[in-house]
Amino acid sequence: MKLSSSFVPTLKEVPNEAVVSSHILMLRAGLIRQLSAGIYSFLPLGYRILQKITNIVREEMNAIGAQEFHLPALNPRELWESTGRVEAFGDIMFHVKNRDYILAPTHEEVVAYHAKGVLKSYKDLPQTWYQIQTKFRNEARPRSGVIRSRQFLMKDAYSFDSTEEGLDKSYLAQDGAYRAIFDRCNIKYFVVGAASGAMGGSKSEEFMVESEAGEDTVAYCEESGYAANIEVAQSIVDSAPRFENSEELKEISTPNVKSIDELCEFLAIDESQTAKSRVYIFEEEPVLILMLGNEEVNESKLEGFLGGTVRPAHPEELQKITGAEAGSIGPIGFKHRIIADLRLKDANNLISGANKNDFHIGGIDFKRDVPQAEFTDLRIVQSGEKSIDGKGELKVFKAIELGHIFKLGTKYSVGIGANFLDENGKENPIIMGSYGIGIERILACFIEQNHDENGLIWKKPIAPFDVHLLGLNMKKEIVAETCESLYNQLNEAGIEVLYDDRKDVQAGFKFNEADLLGMPIQLIVGEKSLKENIVEVKVRATGERLKVNLDEVLLEIHRLIKHQV
Amino acid sequence: MKLSSSFVPTLKEVPNEAVVSSHILMLRAGLIRQLSAGIYSFLPLGYRILQKITNIVREEMNAIGAQEFHLPALNPRELWESTGRVEAFGDIMFHVKNRDYILAPTHEEVVAYHAKGVLKSYKDLPQTWYQIQTKFRNEARPRSGVIRSRQFLMKDAYSFDSTEEGLDKSYLAQDGAYRAIFDRCNIKYFVVGAASGAMGGSKSEEFMVESEAGEDTVAYCEESGYAANIEVAQSIVDSAPRFENSEELKEISTPNVKSIDELCEFLAIDESQTAKSRVYIFEEEPVLILMLGNEEVNESKLEGFLGGTVRPAHPEELQKITGAEAGSIGPIGFKHRIIADLRLKDANNLISGANKNDFHIGGIDFKRDVPQAEFTDLRIVQSGEKSIDGKGELKVFKAIELGHIFKLGTKYSVGIGANFLDENGKENPIIMGSYGIGIERILACFIEQNHDENGLIWKKPIAPFDVHLLGLNMKKEIVAETCESLYNQLNEAGIEVLYDDRKDVQAGFKFNEADLLGMPIQLIVGEKSLKENIVEVKVRATGERLKVNLDEVLLEIHRLIKHQV
Repeated sequence: MKLSSSFVPTLKEVPNEAVVSSHILMLRAGLIRQLSAGIYSFLPLGYRILQKITNIVREEMNAIGAQEFHLPALNPRELWESTGRVEAFGDIMFHVKNRDYILAPTHEEVVAYHAKGVLKSYKDLPQTWYQIQTKFRNEARPRSGVIRSRQFLMKDAYSFDSTEEGLDKSYLAQDGAYRAIFDRCNIKYFVVGAASGAMGGSKSEEFMVESEAGEDTVAYCEESGYAANIEVAQSIVDSAPRFENSEELKEISTPNVKSIDELCEFLAIDESQTAKSRVYIFEEEPVLILMLGNEEVNESKLEGFLGGTVRPAHPEELQKITGAEAGSIGPIGFKHRIIADLRLKDANNLISGANKNDFHIGGIDFKRDVPQAEFTDLRIVQSGEKSIDGKGELKVFKAIELGHIFKLGTKYSVGIGANFLDENGKENPIIMGSYGIGIERILACFIEQNHDENGLIWKKPIAPFDVHLLGLNMKKEIVAETCESLYNQLNEAGIEVLYDDRKDVQAGFKFNEADLLGMPIQLIVGEKSLKENIVEVKVRATGERLKVNLDEVLLEIHRLIKHQV
Repeated sequence: MKLSSSFVPTLKEVPNEAVVSSHILMLRAGLIRQLSAGIYSFLPLGYRILQKITNIVREEMNAIGAQEFHLPALNPRELWESTGRVEAFGDIMFHVKNRDYILAPTHEEVVAYHAKGVLKSYKDLPQTWYQIQTKFRNEARPRSGVIRSRQFLMKDAYSFDSTEEGLDKSYLAQDGAYRAIFDRCNIKYFVVGAASGAMGGSKSEEFMVESEAGEDTVAYCEESGYAANIEVAQSIVDSAPRFENSEELKEISTPNVKSIDELCEFLAIDESQTAKSRVYIFEEEPVLILMLGNEEVNESKLEGFLGGTVRPAHPEELQKITGAEAGSIGPIGFKHRIIADLRLKDANNLISGANKNDFHIGGIDFKRDVPQAEFTDLRIVQSGEKSIDGKGELKVFKAIELGHIFKLGTKYSVGIGANFLDENGKENPIIMGSYGIGIERILACFIEQNHDENGLIWKKPIAPFDVHLLGLNMKKEIVAETCESLYNQLNEAGIEVLYDDRKDVQAGFKFNEADLLGMPIQLIVGEKSLKENIVEVKVRATGERLKVNLDEVLLEIHRLIKHQV
């Protein structure tokens, strides 16, 4: 491809709207342009990469026997009513004004509809169907460029099985294909067991990439591979100390002390001798939550323990329930349910609020003084803590979800009425799985992991081109002729070349743009070196520069491609 | 691909909703399924064909230097306001309910938006951009399966030029690519110069296929290649006779004679001695239109001549304007504008209405009695007439539009403000062209032209598979083993095979299904022939059957593929 006649509108400046590296670089390198908030056009260079990614995904799906479909974006709304998902999606689903359609954010309903009455015997199963298609979601706050946008490409696959064991097999096949896809794309990822949320179903895993642009926070142990969303992640930490002698309860005057930090300073004690109190409302009843020291409550864990949603009590409610303000609440005399973090189980000689403003109570022994307390893990794990499997240290960071595999079970087949006859002639709902990959996210995550201050750094399988050929002064006949000849030779050898053949662009600009666009190999042709029959080869990733005799260019490039892949 | 584990839900019965051959066969062969009126899902076999067509289109677009984009379906409405097309499209454009978006029915606005400020110099031009993407149109009456549906795949390309000569070149390049695409897909098509209608612009051509499923009527001369939409088509026909002696005008009593047929019968004269009158309203003024004999007015031609829209006068208006009813109107004494078909130019001794009920006037000499008449071609051409180029006979038939190429000019660049600086530093709007192909229509049209009473008949470049391998009694070990071995051999040789490996399906059913699915070559493996080391090869298109020795199967299939393509 010749740059002189191509639409690769690079930008020197960082666009205002972009903060995440991949977003900035995709705009700067002319891969995408924004049409509207959360809506992007892919320009030729960007789409070329998307197609390479798409082909890898397609190959790996075909390799596990998945069959490719092409399903409509326009869906009759009533189909989605049958599974209750019009309500479940709410405003995140786009609705059409002049017909009773929705724009499909996913396709469980449609595949179940087509399976119904056709996959009618256990003999017709298993089947796995997939497509690579545009999806629509009315994100309230689209951000990070193509990472969270209002329309995006997704590989979505759906498995149909007659038994749970069959579903296990279909699920594992997808798991394997996902690993192959991300490996081939050179993405460093990890797998997190996830709560499946709005999708329903029993088991699911997320394929994630560490990134500041991520919207999830996860805890990951590189040594053991343990990975969990911060909402459920566990670690091994010391419990509160239990002293040999339990002191008596005593009221302590703590004027103007509102926080654990102030309390520790005022009494000159360690955090580990204090318990923080928080009051939540669960099913209209107050619940006191106690955490060791200054730790925050992991509300997801609390909700998981209680089996429903909670909210913090308002200040007026606090006053009414405890007789005190937020800084002075504690377990002694608290008349409702009390749940404490596991670390407090054996604690004694602890100080907490007195349910009386400006007073705390010391000498609390949980076993003696709060016998009604229930204990569970309510912590938010921190970087540096020991992984719950005891095999290494946790790192807590933000991450992007690249893909998701779900065991759906029969929610959708029941809703749509997609049944099959088993070996005994009995009718059962088909057991389904659902498996998604965000195609643009692969691209964005690759960039998050492969760039430097000068721009993109591609690797072979998804690099838009193998070689960036730079003619430094194209007005010189010898440069133009040599470039043209190299361009043809490389193309004939099956090497993909982006050729900067522009006549009116300075060498410095060409160098910067080649670094920005990031093809793995730069082939630099200048008049001076040519006089000695020499061209320069630069490896983008390492910055390494080689002087190569014209006759050996092809050989050298083949060698580099072979070793870089 | 093995049929035992594939989703190819064939139907024996003709589905009720389908009347057009391609629609019936696409449903029967399991290529598509309807999700809702005008909305179809492509199943694996159907999508496989779409991908082959898409690849051909992509190759030919790339071959003329067009660059592939991927543009969003969600478009901000205000972008379309700037060119006035929200109103122009009206209800045929889908609007989103919960955001101010429309679903793009085409992408002129979006490409002009991206070109704006980037293609800013004549040096940045020409460029041609394309994509192969889903389009949305709220068709009031979707019909004929995928031929007229509410969402469909389109190849849409857009050219940007700085001069009219440049536009000519871009337009011709697309024209050439279209011919290459349809030729490679084995489509018999013809090209029609069309009125460009709602798209605006100066010149356009339609690539069409003859079909009863078509929504356009065209006149086509096979000998000369002359083709035109019936709205503008012209032919060579005899004019009305001019007799040596012009009779005098005379009023003739014609009680209850309302039509030309009745008039000819009543007076025992030939149609060619009569002129039919029709009154239209143009810009609120009446216009009398005269046609020879019983011919109907081609309203498109009339509007083209007048330069605006017309409507027939209501009966009350007729009475008021002429003093008579529809069957008794004529040119003599008519006080407004008169336009007559060219065939009447030299006519004399003609009979027309007297503008008095139950009376006609004979002896009309156009030159003498209607000197104010204007003459132009207002006929609707008929099959069997001589082509206007004099080179053959016209055939009038229905046709499907496969593709369209337009010279848009500057309508959209002006609307969006996409300007460039010319060589003199002067700002001008970019000159655009727009070029569309309906991807599903290629598929449907191919089927319209290639099927018989038993089913589909594929040809190589877009055939989903080259070979349909039928194991007749797969429970016999020798059949299963031979089939498996042939399947592997053919796959290794790069031949695409659909393998009917089902154990519990009768031979007769397999034969019928192979004919229905229509792969070019059937390879039939039965126990009896195998004992003599023989398998059968059937050519789907001709029905020819060959007995082939097992060792020569590969050679024979290579030979057939080579000759069929």
